[in-house]
Amino acid sequence: MTGPSTIIDPRDDVLGRSRVTDTPELEAFYEELAARNAGAFWKRANAIEPWEPATRYRPTLWRYAEMRAMCLRALDLVRPDEAGRRVVTLLNDSDAGRENVAVCGWLFSGMQAMRPGEITPAHKHTASAHRFIMEGKGAYTVVDGHHITLGANDYVLTPNGCWHDHGVAADGEVSIWQDGLDIPLMNSLETNFYAVYDQPAQTAAYPADDLPLTYGGAALRPEGVAAWEKPYSPVMVYRWEAVRDALLNLAKVSVGSPFDGHMMRYANPLTGGWALQTMGAHMRMLPGGFRGKAHRHTGNVVYNVARGRGCSIIGGQRYDWQTHDIFCVPAWTWHEHVNLDAAEEAFLFSFNDFPVMEALGVRIEEPFPKNDGHQICAS
Amino acid sequence: MTGPSTIIDPRDDVLGRSRVTDTPELEAFYEELAARNAGAFWKRANAIEPWEPATRYRPTLWRYAEMRAMCLRALDLVRPDEAGRRVVTLLNDSDAGRENVAVCGWLFSGMQAMRPGEITPAHKHTASAHRFIMEGKGAYTVVDGHHITLGANDYVLTPNGCWHDHGVAADGEVSIWQDGLDIPLMNSLETNFYAVYDQPAQTAAYPADDLPLTYGGAALRPEGVAAWEKPYSPVMVYRWEAVRDALLNLAKVSVGSPFDGHMMRYANPLTGGWALQTMGAHMRMLPGGFRGKAHRHTGNVVYNVARGRGCSIIGGQRYDWQTHDIFCVPAWTWHEHVNLDAAEEAFLFSFNDFPVMEALGVRIEEPFPKNDGHQICAS
Amino acid sequence: MTGPSTIIDPRDDVLGRSRVTDTPELEAFYEELAARNAGAFWKRANAIEPWEPATRYRPTLWRYAEMRAMCLRALDLVRPDEAGRRVVTLLNDSDAGRENVAVCGWLFSGMQAMRPGEITPAHKHTASAHRFIMEGKGAYTVVDGHHITLGANDYVLTPNGCWHDHGVAADGEVSIWQDGLDIPLMNSLETNFYAVYDQPAQTAAYPADDLPLTYGGAALRPEGVAAWEKPYSPVMVYRWEAVRDALLNLAKVSVGSPFDGHMMRYANPLTGGWALQTMGAHMRMLPGGFRGKAHRHTGNVVYNVARGRGCSIIGGQRYDWQTHDIFCVPAWTWHEHVNLDAAEEAFLFSFNDFPVMEALGVRIEEPFPKNDGHQICAS
Amino acid sequence: MTGPSTIIDPRDDVLGRSRVTDTPELEAFYEELAARNAGAFWKRANAIEPWEPATRYRPTLWRYAEMRAMCLRALDLVRPDEAGRRVVTLLNDSDAGRENVAVCGWLFSGMQAMRPGEITPAHKHTASAHRFIMEGKGAYTVVDGHHITLGANDYVLTPNGCWHDHGVAADGEVSIWQDGLDIPLMNSLETNFYAVYDQPAQTAAYPADDLPLTYGGAALRPEGVAAWEKPYSPVMVYRWEAVRDALLNLAKVSVGSPFDGHMMRYANPLTGGWALQTMGAHMRMLPGGFRGKAHRHTGNVVYNVARGRGCSIIGGQRYDWQTHDIFCVPAWTWHEHVNLDAAEEAFLFSFNDFPVMEALGVRIEEPFPKNDGHQICAS
Ligand SMILES: [Fe+2]
Ligand SMILES: [Fe+2]
Ligand SMILES: [Fe+2]
Ligand SMILES: [Fe+2]
Ligand SMILES: [Fe+2]
Ligand SMILES: [Fe+2]
Ligand SMILES: [Fe+2]
Ligand SMILES: [Fe+2]
Repeated sequence: MTGPSTIIDPRDDVLGRSRVTDTPELEAFYEELAARNAGAFWKRANAIEPWEPATRYRPTLWRYAEMRAMCLRALDLVRPDEAGRRVVTLLNDSDAGRENVAVCGWLFSGMQAMRPGEITPAHKHTASAHRFIMEGKGAYTVVDGHHITLGANDYVLTPNGCWHDHGVAADGEVSIWQDGLDIPLMNSLETNFYAVYDQPAQTAAYPADDLPLTYGGAALRPEGVAAWEKPYSPVMVYRWEAVRDALLNLAKVSVGSPFDGHMMRYANPLTGGWALQTMGAHMRMLPGGFRGKAHRHTGNVVYNVARGRGCSIIGGQRYDWQTHDIFCVPAWTWHEHVNLDAAEEAFLFSFNDFPVMEALGVRIEEPFPKNDGHQICAS
Repeated sequence: MTGPSTIIDPRDDVLGRSRVTDTPELEAFYEELAARNAGAFWKRANAIEPWEPATRYRPTLWRYAEMRAMCLRALDLVRPDEAGRRVVTLLNDSDAGRENVAVCGWLFSGMQAMRPGEITPAHKHTASAHRFIMEGKGAYTVVDGHHITLGANDYVLTPNGCWHDHGVAADGEVSIWQDGLDIPLMNSLETNFYAVYDQPAQTAAYPADDLPLTYGGAALRPEGVAAWEKPYSPVMVYRWEAVRDALLNLAKVSVGSPFDGHMMRYANPLTGGWALQTMGAHMRMLPGGFRGKAHRHTGNVVYNVARGRGCSIIGGQRYDWQTHDIFCVPAWTWHEHVNLDAAEEAFLFSFNDFPVMEALGVRIEEPFPKNDGHQICAS
Repeated sequence: MTGPSTIIDPRDDVLGRSRVTDTPELEAFYEELAARNAGAFWKRANAIEPWEPATRYRPTLWRYAEMRAMCLRALDLVRPDEAGRRVVTLLNDSDAGRENVAVCGWLFSGMQAMRPGEITPAHKHTASAHRFIMEGKGAYTVVDGHHITLGANDYVLTPNGCWHDHGVAADGEVSIWQDGLDIPLMNSLETNFYAVYDQPAQTAAYPADDLPLTYGGAALRPEGVAAWEKPYSPVMVYRWEAVRDALLNLAKVSVGSPFDGHMMRYANPLTGGWALQTMGAHMRMLPGGFRGKAHRHTGNVVYNVARGRGCSIIGGQRYDWQTHDIFCVPAWTWHEHVNLDAAEEAFLFSFNDFPVMEALGVRIEEPFPKNDGHQICAS
Repeated sequence: MTGPSTIIDPRDDVLGRSRVTDTPELEAFYEELAARNAGAFWKRANAIEPWEPATRYRPTLWRYAEMRAMCLRALDLVRPDEAGRRVVTLLNDSDAGRENVAVCGWLFSGMQAMRPGEITPAHKHTASAHRFIMEGKGAYTVVDGHHITLGANDYVLTPNGCWHDHGVAADGEVSIWQDGLDIPLMNSLETNFYAVYDQPAQTAAYPADDLPLTYGGAALRPEGVAAWEKPYSPVMVYRWEAVRDALLNLAKVSVGSPFDGHMMRYANPLTGGWALQTMGAHMRMLPGGFRGKAHRHTGNVVYNVARGRGCSIIGGQRYDWQTHDIFCVPAWTWHEHVNLDAAEEAFLFSFNDFPVMEALGVRIEEPFPKNDGHQICAS
């Protein structure tokens, strides 16, 4: 009499994989192991060493029209001092997403609206954060005493361990932004620390926008200022106009990527590397009528449509998007992007966990090998 | 009428934390959000942003006498070609450990016995592996064609992506070692790839032990050999005698660490950094009668007693150990080590996920602040 | 009877310096040593190990009005194809300068005028070069197939080992620029190699200005383009307008350096380091009425007045300057800069050998310690 | 009527080189330039931009028997406190060598004998130094308070800026070593600073040999000790036995370099790079009967025969050597090494200025292209 086999996939029936058929002796052995906080590796080997990753997350899209309305409703329902942060959380449409409070992979994302004169109480955490501004006027953030003004489509950092508070100036307008954080990663690594500041808000300790004005020159490095020794970008905020112009310049002289069109990384100008240690961000420009090819890679990506309309085929499903819609592409999932406007460029902001993949030696990528690089779309 | 509060800890009742009392309006809002793959951040903020990490893992100890017997029994129960790897898995005594097949945190560990003439079929994976040899004669591993001989208390690498197979020479003796891998981390990051080699074993492509003989000189770098451009240590194996002697030398001129006695990192001699990208390892020597102070830190550590007898107080509980017992210290858990032999040194091997903590900017540590640095032991 | 002493400075009469008085026995010994390609260290120790550097170079200033006239006269006197490069060399007013064809230290500098339609024949060398454009229209350089257009006050690279040729477009205007090279350093190190291209000029292999358009975004890094693996900046040209604006931005939020006012390094955006391996360059802005303090440092600096009028006190002598005058500050010589216009900013471009000083561990600097930081001016 | 041509080599008669024939107008122009601290580049271009380096130095060999005698005679002729350092300087057999007090290129070398109980007064300088011990017992050096014991064929550092004094213990024996410094380089760069200590000798501030005992483990890095943040190797001394054994190990598994046999760099174990910023050092082992091929490279190399007898063909001339003879190979000069003992290994220590060449991007090398890689020997 024999019990079940450890083979869970036809490919497993090969030397180098577990191909054990359980016997009563083995089952008795398994029980003895269990009594000693132990197990038989071969019982679970094929499951915990898959041939390739199979994500627990699903492509998910959030329409700006709907989510914006939700954010605005929250304005009336809770006060920021009471909520801590009056954020609407984006939950991946999967058990993993709902359980881990994750937008995709170990990434968190939320949307936040603020009224003129409101502030988010000052605090800090080991989770890193960054923000992409979608609309409004007069928004700002204060990071370790540096006051940073924010406009639409700007991208701003709140690195690991920095005190921060946000607000909208009294003479501004209701502002809405997307937050990205690695809270789920920090929790999964059991490295999440939190502290509140001893004042509701920081007093700016430097002239407004001192960091972007100091470090924001192209291929220039300030001298005669204190050495920057932090492991993140000193620029702090990346202005939309500058990013857009850089992409338009790049497009004049480059054919671009078949997958991403023209793409710029928000970088640390002192190292050329990522702006933060655990999350990266890009802006890409898809020329009018661009039809990208499909690829897949490790790491998770959350997109925000900075401008334009188009669609993405993700895991064989089509997702149509327009300005400020948000969607995600889970790890190792085929995806391709299309600009549905024949004449106008589309701009896609995105953030990701590629710095984690690179730091751990597992940033892996491959192009879609068939059908001239295009998925067969199910929908 | 009001619903439950979001406060989950007395410390949460402060500006900067979520302190919302639910109302019917809010509950209606939550339902609308849920229908849109969204949620209210403040409902779960205090839970997902704890004041400090609270580990899901428990200190666990495996006695060598017992586990050795289990490994030897496995020799008769399954064949290596059938099991893939005839490994007894060490499962942390916690739900997380059993669910994730983890020894502690996102680390995997197992014990493996092999008879003379047996081999483990060749394969590779993105998970990194390393091994600590506990007993035997004639064991070897082959890593990307480099044949490496192994003796008791040697430490050997099988880096991310390298083809590897293991065996014991026909004229050797039954050998037992401990495996450490980051399989759970690779699964949690959805970056785990696996492949089998097209032969049962690799043919050695280089003279035996060429890598340790080439790169194993102290503070010397070979010239006239091909440049080493891999992101891991070229030494591949670290011999017990050399590590022991280095610790004895260090002890002659250093007072050592109050927490760890005299300690050496197994390093990459070309960078001074960790030998692998995702896991580190150390050997420490506790002088006779050493009574270490307590500290805690992010990251998980799995110990193997290379030699000696002592105890460790972990999270307030005492764990006695002797040669080749294995135990673990979960993240952010107080721990201190004691050498119970007044005259003889104790040697503790350990491996950890500190390279992950460092790469992601969250390697954090603190000494026990009270009672002259010693925990009050519960047992 | 005793001979001369080895003391050459009153400070030498101290333990640790050579204080030998020659004797007939010693003189006989010296002769025996000389016969064996040897000598007595103590005879020359105090000379070759000075208490501090004493430069062989002198501050020197070249008036643009005069040098411009010389360059224009050269247009009629030699043809570029005959001269190789029709450059007027700036020779430091010292024996070392004239002997080594050096502007200051191991740096070379020259001025070059070109007529529309002229080209400098293509060639390469291990000496690195960079240029600062002073006037004209339609000038360009081609570096390893990359065509780069040049305007007034732009700064452009021709790194070590790159094929390069220069010219002025047929519809341009007579253009004048300053060249900086490390020819003397390469000769002193016996590492100077030279080659001529097999065509008079390179054919542009890329769209015009592809490198600055690709890499010239502020704190942005292009993705989807071939990896840049050269040890120098990919930007190649730094536009005057962008540099000026970056300095104006910096001045809004920084008090600046007491020595240099507001200063930007022309940097490699992929590393934050110098644009070239052996020479650095800066633009500094001295606010209206700025009166800098004096300091001195290792390394040599050659200035070109991008705009404005002022003076510099160098080694106690005053040198007045106006737009496009060139002057130099030798190593370890006190210097301070003054903007003589109370209202208008002055802009000073400079290049230097600081990357050499840093790479070799000898970048050393000190402020003038007396008289509130100002030299007593001799003139 | 025409004057002399600028062509100085038949290869110069090509587009891209200076090919100007002087005219009376040009000569008048040259005079006007000279009056303005300027010159015509084309007049000297071909001279200062040679097709390839032509060294000013000559291969030179110093016999140990003779030089040892000179060093011992110096013991009686001057006292160390009077001489500062009682060193016999090795002068390259060339005008450049004698003028610059150089052994080869910008390198200095000397030989120093000390009697038991003698000390060299403590001092420091920006010039870096290292030493190779040739004979004796009880020699030591003290570097920034670290006392380091020295034996025959050990290699020891005295990095840039460190306080140092040397001596031989009272119960030791007369000791002789070779010093290598970059004094000429520091002078040529005008970066040479010197200071004397306020005591004749340093008091050891650490246990004897603490640095080699702490950092001398192979591929191990001490933890729990203060971070090492200096830009040079913490090992300080490299023991002969360990270096010899590492070479014997390497020889078991490597074919070696056709030029240098088996070769190890004295490395910084924290970076894999050179031990000092401006000078490197190697030990090479030539197997019995080894006949190396010829190559040439930028940079200068000074050899000390650690053990054995052989010859080197340098620039077409044969130089025979035996234990502790010293010889040099100037930049870009063909050279090949032969072990004249068919059975015994020869060991050649050498030091060089390769770190300078690498830091400045001009480390260039080529094999001898003819005659199966062997020069035609003139002698
Ligand atoms: Fe926050
Ligand atoms: Fe993608
Ligand atoms: Fe494996
Ligand atoms: Fe610990
Ligand atoms: Fe040139
Ligand atoms: Fe200066
Ligand atoms: Fe010295
Ligand atoms: Fe060589």
